[in-house]
Amino acid sequence: MTTAPFFRKTYAGRRVLITGGLGFIGSTLARALVALGARVTIVDSLIPEYGGNRRNLAGIASRVRVHVADVRDWPRLPRLVRGQDFIFNLAGQTSHMDSMTDPQTDLDINCRAQLAILEACRIHNPGIRIVFASTRQIYGRPDYLPVDERHPLRPVDVNGINKIAGESFHLLYSRVHGLRATALRLTNTIGPRMRVKDARQTFVGVWIRDLVQGRPFEVWGGSQRRDFTYVDDAVEAFLLAAARPEGVGEAFNLGGPPPVTLHQLAHLLVELNGGGIFRVREFPADRKKIDIGDFYADDRRIARRLGWRPRTDLKTMLARTLEFYRTELKHYS
Amino acid sequence: MTTAPFFRKTYAGRRVLITGGLGFIGSTLARALVALGARVTIVDSLIPEYGGNRRNLAGIASRVRVHVADVRDWPRLPRLVRGQDFIFNLAGQTSHMDSMTDPQTDLDINCRAQLAILEACRIHNPGIRIVFASTRQIYGRPDYLPVDERHPLRPVDVNGINKIAGESFHLLYSRVHGLRATALRLTNTIGPRMRVKDARQTFVGVWIRDLVQGRPFEVWGGSQRRDFTYVDDAVEAFLLAAARPEGVGEAFNLGGPPPVTLHQLAHLLVELNGGGIFRVREFPADRKKIDIGDFYADDRRIARRLGWRPRTDLKTMLARTLEFYRTELKHYS
Repeated sequence: MTTAPFFRKTYAGRRVLITGGLGFIGSTLARALVALGARVTIVDSLIPEYGGNRRNLAGIASRVRVHVADVRDWPRLPRLVRGQDFIFNLAGQTSHMDSMTDPQTDLDINCRAQLAILEACRIHNPGIRIVFASTRQIYGRPDYLPVDERHPLRPVDVNGINKIAGESFHLLYSRVHGLRATALRLTNTIGPRMRVKDARQTFVGVWIRDLVQGRPFEVWGGSQRRDFTYVDDAVEAFLLAAARPEGVGEAFNLGGPPPVTLHQLAHLLVELNGGGIFRVREFPADRKKIDIGDFYADDRRIARRLGWRPRTDLKTMLARTLEFYRTELKHYS
Repeated sequence: MTTAPFFRKTYAGRRVLITGGLGFIGSTLARALVALGARVTIVDSLIPEYGGNRRNLAGIASRVRVHVADVRDWPRLPRLVRGQDFIFNLAGQTSHMDSMTDPQTDLDINCRAQLAILEACRIHNPGIRIVFASTRQIYGRPDYLPVDERHPLRPVDVNGINKIAGESFHLLYSRVHGLRATALRLTNTIGPRMRVKDARQTFVGVWIRDLVQGRPFEVWGGSQRRDFTYVDDAVEAFLLAAARPEGVGEAFNLGGPPPVTLHQLAHLLVELNGGGIFRVREFPADRKKIDIGDFYADDRRIARRLGWRPRTDLKTMLARTLEFYRTELKHYS
C-alpha cells in the first residue's frame, strides 16, 4: 500500500472501536489496524447467523480487546465509545431474506441500534470520527448503470429501508450535531474470512464453499451483472475515510473491477479452482420479489474526493479467496 | 361533497380502524366516517405531548369505540386489526424538535411501531386497505418548487428519517406481501381541532391561540413560503385513497391553495380576526438547523390518479379555524 506511512501516522497508538469487528470486513480491518499500531477494541454479538467468528482474529487475538456485546444493548454503549478516537461501525444484519422473515430484528440492529450508537457518541464522545458501513442495497433496482450516489434510494426489502435510516442518522448527526461521520455504500465484498456457511453475506460464499468441497454449486438466474470489491480494498476505503476530513457528512459508493455476469463469475471460479461444476436454476419466487437485477457502482466520487481506487482485479480476489478456504474451510463451515 | 354517495357506498356499515384517531386529522376523519355510517374504532395513546384529545369526539363519542392504547404495544395490535375493512394509520410523533431531543421515541413510534402494525395486518388481516399519514418533512430542503413526488428524499431531522422508513414499509408491504397500502404526504394541515397548545403539530396553532386570547404571536423569520391544506380536504383525500384501487403501493402529496409567506399568513390572520399583533423575530439557532425554508407541494399526481383537489381557500380555512377556537379554546389549551 503506497499510503502505509500516512495510515501509520494516522492510526499508530490511536484508540479504535470496531463494531461487528469479528465479522468478515471488521476483522480484516482490525488486522490492518493492529499492523498499523492502533489500539483496537472490538464489539461483536457473535450471533451465529451473523458474520462474527473468533477464527477471524487468528494471529492477532492477543493484540485486540474483544467485547462480546450486542449493539442493541444500549446501556453498554457509553462505556464502549468513551475515549475512542475512531469508530468503524460495521455491526449489522446483512441478510436480505432474513430482513423479510424477521423484519423487526433487522430494524432493531440496522436502524434503532445505529441511532443509539450515535446518541452515545454525541453525549459521551462528540469528537470521535465515525465511518459507517452502508450498502448498495439502499438503491434498489437501478434506473441506470453504473449507479452513482445521486441515484434515487428505492429499496426493495426491509434491509434496504433500515440501512437508509441507519446511514441517514449518521449523516444527520454530522450536519446537525457536529459529529464527524462518513458512510461507505458497499457492494459485494469478497475475500478471505467472508461468510461461506450460507448466503447471508453474499451468494459467492456458498459457491466457494461448494467448489472447495468438490460439490456442484447453484447459480440462480445467471445473466445479472454485478461488481465485487476485494476486502483489502474495502478496508483501505474505511481507513482513508476516517483519516481524511473531506468526506464528513457524506456517503460514497465503493466499486471494484469491471462488472461480470454471474455466469462469467461462475466460469471464472471453476477455471481458477482447476475444475468444478455448477447448475443454473430459476430464481426462487420469494427471492425474485426482492432481487435488484443488474447492479454495479460508479465509484468516481470517492476516487475524486478521497483518492480511493479498487486495486485488486477479479481473478486475483477470487484466487486468494479460494486459496484461503482450501486450508481454512473447516473453521468456517 | 359531490362524492358523498360514492363515499356512503364505500363506507356505510364497514369497519374502520383509525390509529391516532383522537388527534386533529384522525378525529375529523372519524367524524366524517360516522356521518357516512361506518363502524369506527379508534386507537389513541392520549400521550399529552401528542394530538389526542377526547374533546375532539364531542357529539360522536357514543358512536365510536375508543381504545386508549399505544401502537408501540405490539401484543395489542393483532386484536385491533382483525376484522377491520380499513385502517387509517395516523398515529405518529409529529414534532420535529422533539425528534431531535428524544430521537428514540420518534423512532419507536414513527418507524418501529409502523412495521409492527404492518406485520399484524400481514399475518392477521392481509385483505385490509391501509392509508398511511406521511409528511412533506421527508423531502427536506427543496431543490425546486413546487415539490413533486419524484423530488429526492433528504430529510433534515430525525422525524423525517423515521417517517421515510414508516412510509417505505407501507409501500414495500404492498409490493412484496400484497397488502394494499397508500401513503399521503401531508403538508401543514389547518382547521378546527388542530393542536394549539404548542407548535408540535404546526406553528399556526399557537398563532391562532394567541390571537384568540388577544395576545401578540411570534413569527420566526417570515419570508418562508408555505402551503396549507384544510382538514376537511385532507380527510377527503384519506377517504378517496382508501376507496379507490389506483393508489395502491403509491405515495401522493397533498397540497392546498397557492402558497403564502408567513408574513402574509400573519397579516391575513390579523385581518380575519378583526385585529391582533404579531412580532417578527430571528429564527432560534436550534430550529434554524432543521428548518426547510420555502416549501409547497405539487399535488397534481393525486389530482390525476384519484381526482382529489383542495377545495378550501386560505381565508375560509383560517376563518373557520378562528371561529372554532373562539368558543372551543378552553378545551384545547
